Amino acid sequence: MTVFALEDRLVASLARGVRQRDDGDGDAAAPEEVFARAAWTSIAEPGDAAAALLIDGLGAGAALEAIVSGRSATAIAEELASQTHVDITAVTPAIGQGLERWRPRLVSAQVVRSLEQAARSGVFLALRGDESWPHGLDDLGPHAPLALWRRGAVGLGERARSIALVGARAASGYGEHVTMEAAAGLVDRGFVIVSGAAYGIDGMAHRAALASDGTTVAFLAGGLDRYYPSGHDALITRIAETGAVFSELPCGAPPTRWRFLQRNRIIAAASRATVVLEAGRRSGSLNTAGHAAALGRPLGSVPGPVTSATSAGCHRLIREFDAVCVTDAAEMAELVTGLLPEPPAARDRRSGEEQRVLDALSTRTARTADDLARRSGLSPSSVRATLGLLGIEGLIRERPDGWVSATGSPR
Amino acid sequence: MTVFALEDRLVASLARGVRQRDDGDGDAAAPEEVFARAAWTSIAEPGDAAAALLIDGLGAGAALEAIVSGRSATAIAEELASQTHVDITAVTPAIGQGLERWRPRLVSAQVVRSLEQAARSGVFLALRGDESWPHGLDDLGPHAPLALWRRGAVGLGERARSIALVGARAASGYGEHVTMEAAAGLVDRGFVIVSGAAYGIDGMAHRAALASDGTTVAFLAGGLDRYYPSGHDALITRIAETGAVFSELPCGAPPTRWRFLQRNRIIAAASRATVVLEAGRRSGSLNTAGHAAALGRPLGSVPGPVTSATSAGCHRLIREFDAVCVTDAAEMAELVTGLLPEPPAARDRRSGEEQRVLDALSTRTARTADDLARRSGLSPSSVRATLGLLGIEGLIRERPDGWVSATGSPR
Repeated sequence: MTVFALEDRLVASLARGVRQRDDGDGDAAAPEEVFARAAWTSIAEPGDAAAALLIDGLGAGAALEAIVSGRSATAIAEELASQTHVDITAVTPAIGQGLERWRPRLVSAQVVRSLEQAARSGVFLALRGDESWPHGLDDLGPHAPLALWRRGAVGLGERARSIALVGARAASGYGEHVTMEAAAGLVDRGFVIVSGAAYGIDGMAHRAALASDGTTVAFLAGGLDRYYPSGHDALITRIAETGAVFSELPCGAPPTRWRFLQRNRIIAAASRATVVLEAGRRSGSLNTAGHAAALGRPLGSVPGPVTSATSAGCHRLIREFDAVCVTDAAEMAELVTGLLPEPPAARDRRSGEEQRVLDALSTRTARTADDLARRSGLSPSSVRATLGLLGIEGLIRERPDGWVSATGSPR
Repeated sequence: MTVFALEDRLVASLARGVRQRDDGDGDAAAPEEVFARAAWTSIAEPGDAAAALLIDGLGAGAALEAIVSGRSATAIAEELASQTHVDITAVTPAIGQGLERWRPRLVSAQVVRSLEQAARSGVFLALRGDESWPHGLDDLGPHAPLALWRRGAVGLGERARSIALVGARAASGYGEHVTMEAAAGLVDRGFVIVSGAAYGIDGMAHRAALASDGTTVAFLAGGLDRYYPSGHDALITRIAETGAVFSELPCGAPPTRWRFLQRNRIIAAASRATVVLEAGRRSGSLNTAGHAAALGRPLGSVPGPVTSATSAGCHRLIREFDAVCVTDAAEMAELVTGLLPEPPAARDRRSGEEQRVLDALSTRTARTADDLARRSGLSPSSVRATLGLLGIEGLIRERPDGWVSATGSPR
């Protein structure tokens, strides 16, 4: 393997170090391919569509070799066109711009260091086709991750009932309480709780899932050798032990604002539905909500007091972005199961006639059917029929001098 | 006038007593017609479509004479068919059932007493065509009121900007606070506040409107000689003095549950939009909301804590009945003005490139464009262009050895 001028043996050893035996279909990938995928997570920033185009067309290894060997954008585009159906003139500029982005990062020492660090930290590379690969990510198309770094055994495969619970870092006691109840209720319904491990709502969602002996999965915006935020180090360690922690970024990569925004698209895509539990008008969780909506995933939003700034973003999602107003775990679960809401409880089960006769009755003074007809504005015959029905229901009592209500005040 | 075998002079005097000089077009109505309309409010319960059919077809006086004189349903239907385009066989049963309902109430003494009481109490009869007649009621079709009893001078004519603020009797401090703010803000925007004068949200809506020197109108479910609830006697008196109080029911008629439900349809129809500010899962205000929705009137609902039972009905309206989530007076006003919501504030005004370069900058260590390219994953040329833009915005500073961020932590 000529890539990066590294010896084949080193490449194979590095690749072995970041793969696990039970990685599923993706396990069949050749060492060079595994190494190249891992290298690409260092070279391209999350969501780089040009990198995805190249890798999908040529394979990760050949794509890496193409850019390391210094070939021109036109030459690479021609190679791509010979293997896929892309339009050369359309992709050449994108590849040219990609080359300019990637070249400054073609530093083999850094890639090797990152893979060694991963192997040391028990951080593994998850590839599409692996059992652990979050099934929903494929819906991101050219913006899907090239690979994921993973700590922990739980995946989000095709059958996983996953739901993202996200919200503001600056959560209120109300928001944390509602999140706790929601996470516990969703765990009871067999859901995996997905979130971003941030302070506030995210942290509470993970914590409540763990406290309910549920499974929870976190997506981070930086390398998994060092958890962010550091104040959640113990929490994220527990998540990795019982569930899983994922990141697009390799070991050694710090989280940046850009990477947080890109991480949000993965949370939305990996989950069957996204619920925002508390969010200010400009909370980052609205970004996650936007991704969920763009992907056509169900989006729920929990209302709160209109006097609370930490619910303003949630109300905005309901008002302007068609989020479903959800108030408890059952309603959040419905987002995924697609069940229709329970039919509204019969609001006025009594017919108008029954209500009007009940209104006309007294609990003390017995009244005749004719008297009740005059008071209710119904015909005497209709009153008599209605009295019969109300009698069967036990709502009225007959006395020698007429009828009385058995139910107290009519109001 | 042979109606009820009353002398014409008495009928004319009673009719004069319940009409005001400035009653507008409706003032032109003959005394017999005014008397008959007033009598009909005693004879038919609110929403009686058969009574409306008869009165619309024959006039109130002739309709009253027809039922007082003991004519058969078939004879009345024939008379109706001779003047309008109704189908005799279709209307005969409805008139027959109506006769049975109305006959027990054909007691002239009671009608006379009710009109005398109205004249004594300053309660006037409002008819369609009057300036005070709430314009929107016409949308109720055959279920529109036959007439309204009125205290106070303010009407809800074609140009009135009216909005109904309704909600639970068992309001919380939160609900009352939000109602107070909403009513004050809507008064500032020139709205007339419509409500039902009940305890809780209704009362607060009226009170806040009065406190803001605004106009407010109440619709009651019983006769206006005695206000219900009696604990709001002083409040309703003030509403009548500065705005108006309306009812379909004549003096002497007590409110009943049926009449409350029918009253709700008038609140919804008389207002350009209805907002439910706080409501339990079975609050009567949901009935008003249902009427608003059925009439195609905009319906708003104020969210609250999901932990509060007094907001559960509001959330249900948003979830299941497509009510618009409204959080302040401006959003409630938008229901009526039909303005689109303000465009969402630019969430990520910075381009991806700008954000990524900002992420890569340090506040302390100066970095070259090439270093920033490697860190951001952008091409060096793109970094240089972006640095130029960020420099113009004052977000970065150039030093001899490179660039630093001028904005503190990138996160």
